[in-house]
Formats: sequence, C-alpha cells, structure tokens
Amino acid sequence: MSLIVEKYGGTSVADAERIDAVARNVAASARAGHQMVVVVSAMRGETDRLLALAREVNAAPSSRELDVLLATGEQVTIALLSMALHALGVAARSYTGAQIRILTDPIHGQARITDIQSERARRDLEAGKVVVVAGFQGVDPDDNITTLGRGGSDTTAVALAAALRADECRIYTDVDGIYTADPRIVPEARRLARVTFEEMLELSGAGAKVLQIRAVEFAGKYDVPLRVLSSFTPGPGTLITREDSAMEQPLISGIACNRGEAKLTIRDVPDKPGIAYAILGPVSDAHINVDMIVQNIGSDGLTDLTFTVDSEDLERSRAILEPIAAELGAAEVAGDGDLAKISVVGVGMRSHAGIATTMFRALSEKGINIQMISTSEIKISVTIDMEYSELAVRTLHKAFRLDEDLDGELDGELDRDSDAAPAPAP
Amino acid sequence: MSLIVEKYGGTSVADAERIDAVARNVAASARAGHQMVVVVSAMRGETDRLLALAREVNAAPSSRELDVLLATGEQVTIALLSMALHALGVAARSYTGAQIRILTDPIHGQARITDIQSERARRDLEAGKVVVVAGFQGVDPDDNITTLGRGGSDTTAVALAAALRADECRIYTDVDGIYTADPRIVPEARRLARVTFEEMLELSGAGAKVLQIRAVEFAGKYDVPLRVLSSFTPGPGTLITREDSAMEQPLISGIACNRGEAKLTIRDVPDKPGIAYAILGPVSDAHINVDMIVQNIGSDGLTDLTFTVDSEDLERSRAILEPIAAELGAAEVAGDGDLAKISVVGVGMRSHAGIATTMFRALSEKGINIQMISTSEIKISVTIDMEYSELAVRTLHKAFRLDEDLDGELDGELDRDSDAAPAPAP
Repeated sequence: MSLIVEKYGGTSVADAERIDAVARNVAASARAGHQMVVVVSAMRGETDRLLALAREVNAAPSSRELDVLLATGEQVTIALLSMALHALGVAARSYTGAQIRILTDPIHGQARITDIQSERARRDLEAGKVVVVAGFQGVDPDDNITTLGRGGSDTTAVALAAALRADECRIYTDVDGIYTADPRIVPEARRLARVTFEEMLELSGAGAKVLQIRAVEFAGKYDVPLRVLSSFTPGPGTLITREDSAMEQPLISGIACNRGEAKLTIRDVPDKPGIAYAILGPVSDAHINVDMIVQNIGSDGLTDLTFTVDSEDLERSRAILEPIAAELGAAEVAGDGDLAKISVVGVGMRSHAGIATTMFRALSEKGINIQMISTSEIKISVTIDMEYSELAVRTLHKAFRLDEDLDGELDGELDRDSDAAPAPAP
Repeated sequence: MSLIVEKYGGTSVADAERIDAVARNVAASARAGHQMVVVVSAMRGETDRLLALAREVNAAPSSRELDVLLATGEQVTIALLSMALHALGVAARSYTGAQIRILTDPIHGQARITDIQSERARRDLEAGKVVVVAGFQGVDPDDNITTLGRGGSDTTAVALAAALRADECRIYTDVDGIYTADPRIVPEARRLARVTFEEMLELSGAGAKVLQIRAVEFAGKYDVPLRVLSSFTPGPGTLITREDSAMEQPLISGIACNRGEAKLTIRDVPDKPGIAYAILGPVSDAHINVDMIVQNIGSDGLTDLTFTVDSEDLERSRAILEPIAAELGAAEVAGDGDLAKISVVGVGMRSHAGIATTMFRALSEKGINIQMISTSEIKISVTIDMEYSELAVRTLHKAFRLDEDLDGELDGELDRDSDAAPAPAP
C-alpha cells in the first residue's frame, strides 16, 4: 500500500464529464489499496470568469479580496469531485486550503507555504477516505485566505506529499510527460522516462512550461518523487527524482526554447563597483523579471552591460533605464526584441567536456548567430534571433542525438538494469 | 454614531451594476459616521447554477459537500462588494462565515447558529472599516462548512446584529416594506410604518413571505430592531420592534393569505389519549409540515381530527395515514386540496373583543364558507376554498378599515407623538 498524492489541473476538471473521469481514475487507485490525496484546480475558465467579475467592480481590486474571490474556484471543484467519488461508492471528503491547514505567509496572490498541519488528512486516510484538497490556496497567520499564484496547485500537491511523506506525487496535465524538445518543433522528440530535479528546474526556467518551478524546487528540497503524466492518455509519464549515482545519466536530457525575449544593452558605462546594481535595481523594483545578464570587460574604464527581459517588458525597461544611463554618463541604451533563448540541459554535462563546442559548431554550421551566452553547471543557454529558434532546436536535438534512444527507456532500460545491477551476494 | 447591520439579498447583488449600487448605499451610511456591517447573499442565479453542477456529477449529493459548494456563492459576493467599496474609497474587509466565526451545529443544509465570536468584526469596526460578511453560512465544531438553508442570510444578519448589539438591522429586499395585505390583491393596501415581532411572526407564518421566520424569531428574542426596506426604491420601509406600551397599537396590522393548503380529516377515531400523536407523529417524521390542527369533540367516544398541510404534500400524507387510520379503526381519511388560509393579525386584538365576529360576518356577507378556524392571542385564521381567497382578503381589508391611515403613519404619527409625549419635567 502506498500513499499517493495526485494533482489534476483545470483542463482535467473542465466539466462534469471530466470530473467523473478523474473520479474513476482516483477510484481505481483507491480500490487497488492506495491511500489517496487528490489536489484539484479551478475548472477551466472559472478563474478568468471571476477575474472579469472583479474588473467590472474595480479596475484595480485589492489582492486580499482577489484571493477571497479566486479561492472559490477550487472550492467548487473539491465539492464536485467528492460528490463524483461518492457516486462511485468511494468514501471521500473535501477540504479547502484553510481547512486542511495549509499555512502561508501573508503575501496575497503569491503566498508561500510555511507549514501544513496534516493531522486531519492523516485521520481521514487511515479511515480509508480519499482526501480531496483545493489547490492554490491557504491561510495566513491572521486566518486571511491567500493564494499561491497561478499554477500554485502543483506546489500544493508537492507540499502535501512532503508533509504526508507520500510515496509519489503525480501531476496530471495535458501532456504525457517531459520531452527531449517541444514535439511541435521536433517531431522526433522523445518522452523522457526519468529526469532529475535539477534538470527539470533548468528546463522549466528555460521555457519548458509543464511544471511550475516552485513545485519542482519543493519536490527536490523534500525529495518527493514527482511524476508528470496525462489525464487523457494512459502511460507512465516522466518521473522526476533526485540524481541517483547508480543510474547512468544521459549526456543531455533536453533542449528548451524560450521565445519572446528581449535584450537591453547599456553601452560605455564607467566600470566601477555597484554599477550592475545601479542599473538592474530599478528594473527589478518595477517587478520586471531579468533573465540572462552579461557584462563584457571593457577598455578605458568603460564596460557594456547586457541583460534580457520578456519582450513585453522591453519598452517599460527602456523607459526606466534612459534616465539612469544619462545619469551614469553611458553612451546609449540599445534594445532588441524578437530574441529566443535556446538551452541545452543535462546533468551529464558535469562530467563531459565539449558540450559547448558541439552546440556552437552545430549552430554555426546553420549560419545561426549567437548573441549572448550564459552557462550553469548543467545548462548552456544562448540567445539568437527568434526567427531561427525552431531551426536551432531541431539542429541541437540532432547534434546531441536526442532522437536516438540513448537513455535506454525501452529495451535499453532492461539492458542497462542488467549491466548496472550489483552482483548477487555470494 | 450608530452600529448598523445591513443585509442584501441575491436580487440586490445580481450583477456588477447592482453591487456597485449597494456599495454606494453602504458608503453613504459609512460617510455619515455609522459603523457598518453588511451581510450579502449569493448573486441571483448562482445557487441554482451550483446545484445544477452538483446534480451533473451526483443525483443525490452529500449534504456536507453541497454546503462546501454552495458556500462559494456568498464568498464571491463578499469579495466583489468589498472591491466595489474600495473603488469608492471606503475601507472594507470581507469575511466568510468561518472567518467571522459564525459557529453552528453540524446539521448540513439547515444548520442553526450556536455562537458568534465577534471580536474580529469589532476590531475592524473600531478601525473604521466596513465589515462585509457572507450570509447563509457558518462552521460546525469540527470546522466543516455548514449552511443555514435558503433565506438563511436574514438570520446571519440578525444574529450578527444581536452579537454586536447593533442599533438596527436592515433587511434590503425587492419590496419596500410590510403591507396591510398583498398589494397585488388589494390595491389599497398600505405599507406599515411599524409592526411588532409577534405580528411579523404571525404574518410570516400565515404566508407573508418577506422575511424568514427564524430571522424574526431571532430578532425578537434578542430585541434587535429590524427594518425591511427596498434596495431599489428609497424609503423608510417597515420597522419591526418589540411592543411598546407607549405606542398606540392599531387593532389589526394586516391580512395574510396562504394559498395552496390542503386539509386531511380522519373521521370517527376512538377519542382516547395519544390519538393525536399516533396520527400526526408519522406525518411529521416524514418531514411534512403540519399547519392548523383542529379536533372536534365527538359523540359515542369517537372524534374527528383535521389538519392542514401544503397541497403538494397531500397525497404523501394520505398514503401515510391510510394504514394508521385502518389500524385505529377510523371510518375514513378524507382529503381536500385547493384551500387557502386567511389570517387577520394584530396585537391590538388582545384588548379588543369582537374581532372574530367582524371577520366571520364580513365573510358570511360575501357567501364565503369557513371550513376551519384556528386562533392565537394575536391572530385569527380561517381556511376557505382557494378560489375565494382574493375576495376574502379584499373583504377583510375593507372590514377592518385597513385602507384608512389608522396607524397614523404620515401626519397622524406627528399628532400621536405630541399626544403621547410625557409632560415636561417641572
């Protein structure tokens, strides 16, 4: 008997029929003897409907009241799913974030979970009941309703799995797993059987938007095995776990692509301490998310600072920078939209040289110009003109032979298992 | 400065425009210096929408989960009204039943309020904030969400007014007060400036469905002045208070009419102790609401027992009674649908003889046959054929001269005040 936490997103509970399908899936696991906790989002479209109502009464609604309003979305789903489970003869009880005691800080709209008092869930599980929990919401120390922000239901599921020491946390989505690249761009892309938390974080940050970064961070921190799978197509999905030294690591797990980036360069700034903060501080104060940052070594005591933001933040960023650049005596602020960030991710990179060389050679052979380069321990990212993005992803997918079954998911997995298995005790 | 609790029903908050109108009304009172608590229902149509969703997943949804589902209706409204108040520059905070600590028993769907911990509301009021509360809902001792049943928002408002010792509880509805009779039947019907709790209870029980009986009982018990007024038409409405000896009481406050009643008679039952219980117990166990009960003194140790139920419960009641009647050796069970109950209500009745005589004479002059009579200290009810109901109401309204301004609402009130005022201290 295992304890499993499952999470179903808004598309999976879009109407009564789909809620019923989710109930059947949960019922099958419960009947197989598993203890089940199910976290659900608001029905698809419900959050937007509520936001539209809010905007009708107030153009800039308070974040506290917005949380009170939006939290009703998941509350509707938990009641309906519990009713659907009852209709199948499965004992189930619904809980709001407040009831299941998901405690958060008081930052409305983007609260962080501080604690989960899981006694009530545990009592129900021991009594054989399915526990149905509203995702995305909690309560702050003053009993105000908070929400974790869009996609926060993934975080709720992982946090509950950690608090209950679940055997697995399953995130049901509309895709059947994590792929070596976006299958819409690379038809040969393969579903990964396994990926590490670190790789998943780099892939998410680089534009593979299957899971919320915070949920993956949480799962990694508390070592909760996380499985991404489809609520529509049966299959094992992709298991996200910690790095296992017994497990042979593929060199590269995947290629991610983040379109719609923009680049800003402040040229000829005096190269002195505090300059990066003077420039980037005000941008970040305006809640503009800065991604890659590159500073070139300059001559004559001058330097260039370049960074990327979302395309839609380009003009706002430029407006913030112009007066700062003037004050600092910089030569100009240059902006360039329509960029893409292409990232190659893999924990195998740690022990293999030459990944960057392969990457740069492949792109150069196709005449794709690299504008910026940024690296981490398990990722290399480059920015290029957006119009080359699909070509770049396909080129790199091929260059790293990701279309071949290198991580041995099918037959290979059996082979590898037999290779890697320790010799039987004498 | 007064503390006022206001309650707005589903029609008053049906859309963004009406929510805005409610906000303006509340803002005006807040700006006049009053401490304001506002209780709201779900937006019109929302409860039915949620019930339809529930029926799609389960034909007989659990009452616990139904409460979780339905409670979202008011939660949406409190958030929207608070946002609308903010848009007018008024400080306001929303609270669900659970948050404002409306504690109830655990009877889902028809919970009763057991306690209100009003400290949080009081803190906000003292800080100058409008407190916006979800009506109709609370929490049981195990922190499960409960609902008070349809119309329970009135009860929430009165209970909060009692707990906070409010100066007045205002129930905004789609009518502008309590009338001497239904204006659709009697065009000359007048709005009453005042009515006592007892009269209101008798009027409600007799079919004047402006207020929930439980809310009036609660207001009477805790002596909360209750005002019924329209959210669409300005005006003072009707104030419902305790009987004031200094106040001249009108003889009759109003004529109520309850159509759709049915009568059941068990003939020739042995007249012995326990017979009424043997007959009515099983009916009431089947959750059929019994209204008037009349037992005639019989001869030969036999008696007839007659009682009324809602027309729609007639056949179910008959099915329950047939075997009981057979067992008791009764002669027959006779049923008669299509009756109306006409009631004359007034606290002045206590000190005036001849009301019944006037009533019976007036009906007899119009050839209206009285089938049953039942009286209380301040009410006389008769059942008649339903087709005579409008005629009966109009006849009695005229017979008791209710179209004349006897309770002195306009000029008369001023006159009466000067008459009744005590002499100034020497």
